[in-house]
Amino acid sequence: MTNFFEGIAPIRYEGPQTGNEFAFRHYNPDEVVLGKTLKEHLRFAIAYWHSFAWEGGDPFGGQTFQRPWFGEGMDLARHKADVAFEMFTILGAPYFCFHDADMRPEGDSFTENTRNLQEMTEYLGQKMEQTGTKLLWGTANLFSHRRYMAGAATNPDPDVFAFAAATVKTCIDATHQLGGENYVLWGGREGYETLLNTDMGRERQQAGRFLQMAVEYARKIGFEGTILIEPKPQEPTKHQYDFDVATVYGFLKDFGLEKEVKVNIEQGHAILAGHSFEHELALARELGIFGSIDMNRNDYQSGWDTDQFPNNVPETALAYYEVLRAGGFTTGGTNFDAKLRRQSLDAQDLILGHVGGMDVCAAGFKAAAAMLEDGKLEAARAERYAGWDSPEAKAMLEGGLDGIAAQVVEQGLNPQPRSGRQERLENLVNRYV
Amino acid sequence: MTNFFEGIAPIRYEGPQTGNEFAFRHYNPDEVVLGKTLKEHLRFAIAYWHSFAWEGGDPFGGQTFQRPWFGEGMDLARHKADVAFEMFTILGAPYFCFHDADMRPEGDSFTENTRNLQEMTEYLGQKMEQTGTKLLWGTANLFSHRRYMAGAATNPDPDVFAFAAATVKTCIDATHQLGGENYVLWGGREGYETLLNTDMGRERQQAGRFLQMAVEYARKIGFEGTILIEPKPQEPTKHQYDFDVATVYGFLKDFGLEKEVKVNIEQGHAILAGHSFEHELALARELGIFGSIDMNRNDYQSGWDTDQFPNNVPETALAYYEVLRAGGFTTGGTNFDAKLRRQSLDAQDLILGHVGGMDVCAAGFKAAAAMLEDGKLEAARAERYAGWDSPEAKAMLEGGLDGIAAQVVEQGLNPQPRSGRQERLENLVNRYV
Amino acid sequence: MTNFFEGIAPIRYEGPQTGNEFAFRHYNPDEVVLGKTLKEHLRFAIAYWHSFAWEGGDPFGGQTFQRPWFGEGMDLARHKADVAFEMFTILGAPYFCFHDADMRPEGDSFTENTRNLQEMTEYLGQKMEQTGTKLLWGTANLFSHRRYMAGAATNPDPDVFAFAAATVKTCIDATHQLGGENYVLWGGREGYETLLNTDMGRERQQAGRFLQMAVEYARKIGFEGTILIEPKPQEPTKHQYDFDVATVYGFLKDFGLEKEVKVNIEQGHAILAGHSFEHELALARELGIFGSIDMNRNDYQSGWDTDQFPNNVPETALAYYEVLRAGGFTTGGTNFDAKLRRQSLDAQDLILGHVGGMDVCAAGFKAAAAMLEDGKLEAARAERYAGWDSPEAKAMLEGGLDGIAAQVVEQGLNPQPRSGRQERLENLVNRYV
Amino acid sequence: MTNFFEGIAPIRYEGPQTGNEFAFRHYNPDEVVLGKTLKEHLRFAIAYWHSFAWEGGDPFGGQTFQRPWFGEGMDLARHKADVAFEMFTILGAPYFCFHDADMRPEGDSFTENTRNLQEMTEYLGQKMEQTGTKLLWGTANLFSHRRYMAGAATNPDPDVFAFAAATVKTCIDATHQLGGENYVLWGGREGYETLLNTDMGRERQQAGRFLQMAVEYARKIGFEGTILIEPKPQEPTKHQYDFDVATVYGFLKDFGLEKEVKVNIEQGHAILAGHSFEHELALARELGIFGSIDMNRNDYQSGWDTDQFPNNVPETALAYYEVLRAGGFTTGGTNFDAKLRRQSLDAQDLILGHVGGMDVCAAGFKAAAAMLEDGKLEAARAERYAGWDSPEAKAMLEGGLDGIAAQVVEQGLNPQPRSGRQERLENLVNRYV
Repeated sequence: MTNFFEGIAPIRYEGPQTGNEFAFRHYNPDEVVLGKTLKEHLRFAIAYWHSFAWEGGDPFGGQTFQRPWFGEGMDLARHKADVAFEMFTILGAPYFCFHDADMRPEGDSFTENTRNLQEMTEYLGQKMEQTGTKLLWGTANLFSHRRYMAGAATNPDPDVFAFAAATVKTCIDATHQLGGENYVLWGGREGYETLLNTDMGRERQQAGRFLQMAVEYARKIGFEGTILIEPKPQEPTKHQYDFDVATVYGFLKDFGLEKEVKVNIEQGHAILAGHSFEHELALARELGIFGSIDMNRNDYQSGWDTDQFPNNVPETALAYYEVLRAGGFTTGGTNFDAKLRRQSLDAQDLILGHVGGMDVCAAGFKAAAAMLEDGKLEAARAERYAGWDSPEAKAMLEGGLDGIAAQVVEQGLNPQPRSGRQERLENLVNRYV
Repeated sequence: MTNFFEGIAPIRYEGPQTGNEFAFRHYNPDEVVLGKTLKEHLRFAIAYWHSFAWEGGDPFGGQTFQRPWFGEGMDLARHKADVAFEMFTILGAPYFCFHDADMRPEGDSFTENTRNLQEMTEYLGQKMEQTGTKLLWGTANLFSHRRYMAGAATNPDPDVFAFAAATVKTCIDATHQLGGENYVLWGGREGYETLLNTDMGRERQQAGRFLQMAVEYARKIGFEGTILIEPKPQEPTKHQYDFDVATVYGFLKDFGLEKEVKVNIEQGHAILAGHSFEHELALARELGIFGSIDMNRNDYQSGWDTDQFPNNVPETALAYYEVLRAGGFTTGGTNFDAKLRRQSLDAQDLILGHVGGMDVCAAGFKAAAAMLEDGKLEAARAERYAGWDSPEAKAMLEGGLDGIAAQVVEQGLNPQPRSGRQERLENLVNRYV
Repeated sequence: MTNFFEGIAPIRYEGPQTGNEFAFRHYNPDEVVLGKTLKEHLRFAIAYWHSFAWEGGDPFGGQTFQRPWFGEGMDLARHKADVAFEMFTILGAPYFCFHDADMRPEGDSFTENTRNLQEMTEYLGQKMEQTGTKLLWGTANLFSHRRYMAGAATNPDPDVFAFAAATVKTCIDATHQLGGENYVLWGGREGYETLLNTDMGRERQQAGRFLQMAVEYARKIGFEGTILIEPKPQEPTKHQYDFDVATVYGFLKDFGLEKEVKVNIEQGHAILAGHSFEHELALARELGIFGSIDMNRNDYQSGWDTDQFPNNVPETALAYYEVLRAGGFTTGGTNFDAKLRRQSLDAQDLILGHVGGMDVCAAGFKAAAAMLEDGKLEAARAERYAGWDSPEAKAMLEGGLDGIAAQVVEQGLNPQPRSGRQERLENLVNRYV
Repeated sequence: MTNFFEGIAPIRYEGPQTGNEFAFRHYNPDEVVLGKTLKEHLRFAIAYWHSFAWEGGDPFGGQTFQRPWFGEGMDLARHKADVAFEMFTILGAPYFCFHDADMRPEGDSFTENTRNLQEMTEYLGQKMEQTGTKLLWGTANLFSHRRYMAGAATNPDPDVFAFAAATVKTCIDATHQLGGENYVLWGGREGYETLLNTDMGRERQQAGRFLQMAVEYARKIGFEGTILIEPKPQEPTKHQYDFDVATVYGFLKDFGLEKEVKVNIEQGHAILAGHSFEHELALARELGIFGSIDMNRNDYQSGWDTDQFPNNVPETALAYYEVLRAGGFTTGGTNFDAKLRRQSLDAQDLILGHVGGMDVCAAGFKAAAAMLEDGKLEAARAERYAGWDSPEAKAMLEGGLDGIAAQVVEQGLNPQPRSGRQERLENLVNRYV
């Protein structure tokens, strides 16, 4: 046991009225809703990077956190893992997620990186066994090192493509070894700073082939988890290719991967793309590519990725409502891609940020489940489109414009609009949240 | 002859030094660049709606323009057409574009709308013959009338779908009759105000089928022009389905239309979607769906569609550079989807807005052509990706992650980044603009 | 009695569990919180314009609402008033607000406008007496008519200034006559479309003098209400002079009006200026110019003024928390500057939009009051700044940089940062909302 | 001589036609415009931080630049200075600007920081003498070190205020010693992350007193340069107190400093605040607080501070036009607060970024000067407001609302709007750029 979280006992559910800030008020892991426990529904995961690797820097200032595990070498990497698993246990989080670079020291070569990754994979495997924490997904950090400054898969230099491809191989291996339920690709540098030096067509082909290779390799070694792409419109690059769910869908279609690859949708990335979180979730569901979520919140008025913990139950409820309409998570889950504000220096803050986030998610989820069970919202939706269920309407879709035009003339059709009832439905939602 | 533009002679090219504000300084229609005249390259079109139908209102104020053709009835519609064609002639614009609702009076029924449309189509046909002005594209206004408030193709009421489909039939007919080179669909109401009352999956299917029908009908009657979709992310609706080029591409793929339908890209819509104009143009080119452009400018700092005349040559040059890289326009052209500011009350303003816009486009186009001819930018781009032309790089794309990883280890690959030279390329561009 | 709201009984408080959508779930007007009833605290007002004058148009479509009172003439204006006061009564709203143009027909001259205004003022006075509804504030519409297209007070034409000034006189008269508790100025056209034709210095002087005149006149006739400016950054104009609270403050200081004039802060305008609503409220409080609020919500991702009904209790709670920290409203109140979505066609929607908004405000207010009463948030804030209460800290502020530098050296001062505890405080807030 | 810029000769003016990318095409320092040389007008300054201290990191990636002077200790600091002054000389830049933290090593205490600063001040003084480069302004970095994470002047801990105050004293001393013509304060951490833990009123008082102390101290030691505040709305903090020019003005008025302190306006900061650069310049001029500019460009579609080199002549021209209308620079100048893209790794990029920026500024400036000399734009502006020059209009401003109303009635005033001619004026501007 490290002493980093000294004095903080495992977080328990105490109900809405508790005055204890180190308790859950809404997240009771064993509470059964819609036939499953909240733990099974929400599938919370903790992100290794924000909580254990990020040092608190921003574009105008350096490190604010002072963690005993910061620094180089395998010993510190193991110490970091010790603390991480202590936090997973304190929070009762069933899952975690990692990038290779979060959990292994950076080496001087691919070979050294691989060795470090393998050693740490062994170590994490032991911790997982000891604690029961599972791996939601693994991923490769193909954006922080300067070699990737102009892209990984989409780099103008084929050697960088090769380095990235080799690295993804090792990360799929590690994810598979640890029983990861998904493997994620986020293309933080797959985009451009300026069109002037960019061959977008070529880069798109590279990215498509790279993704195909990742899928082929994963299947070849028997990895049965889901392969996920995480859309983001920009930042760090001026434009990122995996802009949003709709863009990723067209890309997958082009490379024949729409049945193989799904999306990991992040609230903050949705916002930066000009969409609501629930829009992206609903669209992914309709396109058949909904996979998992990165839960956080972006300040609507900051034009960069703020990765804050969620704290607005009404918004979270709308997101989980779309998740539930998609049938809930299968291999996916709720990963907190959220970081403390850089002024939140204390170990307690790290715990409380997650406690608050988990509670907000649980409260939102329960509201969403109640809305779905009550069925009023879905009944109103169905009623609005009821006209399309008639045989005439269906027949119309089989015909052509000229036939329809003839019918419009013949019937003297002059359709009158009906109220969309938005405020009424918003009031209805407010009954649950 | 009406007397609306009294005293304004046809605009002639007088060169950059002229002090005459009613002359072109850059647009010499007969100037030959890259083997064609500027007139043939730019294919300018005037939009009927902004110049002749819009009354100057905004969300906080009503009509500011007082035009003698405002009002109801066929006589005024003909008067409007007279003035419009006088303006086309004064400007020497080879093309124009229209919505049905711009040029025919609104009737009380589909039948009356159709009759009005047919009469005005006849009248416009005569004007076209007299003046030599051609039709770049026609389209149906499926967004202004209250019946479309909840969508046209995507309406929850199949009767509205029918009314819209019938209307599109008549507009394709009119466009075909007038020899239009393209037919455009802009889905101003194909989207939603709130997800709460929306069945996005259903609406997407409706929209897909609607588009297929439009293509089928156009081909059936022998229309050989291009069918174009015009992307826009939002406004008037909170979310529009044809968000941007990438979104439209995925949609077309889904409905098997990616060879049949192309995009009409508007600068202002690109901006509202968080993209640069040149990004959307380049992406459409790479996806094989580049069609035509709606030229205007959006104030980067107003969150709504400002539809101003273009006035920044360096920006226009970057746009035409991507058009030229796509091989230039075929059936497409440069449509001014631009309107006067509502304080620009005078007939002179209407002419001068277009004169300025045409000049900015011509200057930008000539700069783009010179950049392309000189080849320095393309040489730099090619050099940056030269590594990918090697047989080894190509072979790598045929292989798998494990083979690549073995090679990285064996070769001790450690790629070093090379400068992206953005500032240098920006300086290079500034030599031409 | 008109029959517009036929079948809708006055809205009563039935508590959170009611299934009746035509009842309040949170707004119990007689509930006492912090020593006053909710009715006295919240001081709800209904806006005449959105509910009774707006026809449902947007930049791409016309009228969607079909109200029996739409049209010209005094009879329809009276009918509109009848319906309006019926709605005030159904909702139990103690106040309303109006622009002259909302409630009187537009005349052909200032004289006719004035006569119409006077007649309608009489009529409204009677309705107020009959129903007990009071006037929160009146204002002049100096932005819709084309004469104001280039500004009212800031118009380049002094005749427009004169017309606007005369109009404000009549509106102050009407407000005074009706016992209005405030008079508001919103400068929708006081700004510019382009700097190229604008003399910003001159326009600022005009605006300052105009405001002084309004204050002078109001005092001269014995109006004791508060004069309020309503900031907004843009829309309709590209730039509006009363950009935000901080900007208005500098303007008031310049014209010696910071003791005479306060601000009416609108949620949606705050958002468009890049601020949170609570920021603007807190800043106004600290500057001593907090007056009243226009309650609504702006879609964070639409770049225009969406004027929706509030529906997020956690956000509303933060706003009322700042109102309470300012001591609550004195002459101000909660005016719903919110409009139905244009698809919400029915009379029921009009009622339900307000019922939902009032409930959300009441729930937010009660949460804010509980937070303030509990005192935990204020205790944490006070503790964070406690160091400044020491005599040494206070003395430091009396000194100079050189003295401080000497002390820093002498004491070897090396201050260590302390956690800002943001997540903890956010969790705390979530206990109340 | 270091060998960092080996092979790069001093940049000379060779005229627009030159094919040499290491030459000026527009910036001829000795060219006389409006009675002064371009060198005297533009007063170019190079920023120490971006070019010599920034390592190429962004929120998702680390250092990309590898400079021989990176690291700790005085020797490297001197090496950095050697390279910096070589660059100033190669570019022929008459000025530079610095933060203390850019040019001196960070020490373990205030005393060590001060000693390092003093030594480096000596060293820089010698370099300045040798090269003739002068100091446009100095400033203190009160945002990068973790002690400032919650603000400097506005910190909840008075010890941090003290440390910051002492640091500003040493930076004013250094600036004074080096003959700096201005002293700048940018409050990168003077703002908040969350209102929940913030006492905005208290912090505002602290900031006001801090600024007064800085002014008092500067005057006490005989510093005659201008004290400048640099507005920015957000980033790094969620909200920064010096939001924009209008906000700073109100703040200065409140603390009686509006005659003592001016503003240093940055293009990118103006954009982030929702303003055009020229708006901020014009407003500062009208308020009498225009001081200096930080020239750069922000990507309009990236929501963070991109600090790119300017490259759009039409935009730069509009900015310098406002500078010229303010009478040009006195103690201020054109500081390039611009950094290379992190992929621009080479020494050549550093030179070429500045060469391009200086050329764009020179071209823009000459266009602005020509516009002003020709006088057409100012004539149109004056004509638009000519009505206000009449004695009647002036008299009206002396009167009251009731008098004006009487006159409006008597004269039957019904003002007709006149065209604002925006497109015409935009065309006019395009003649010069």
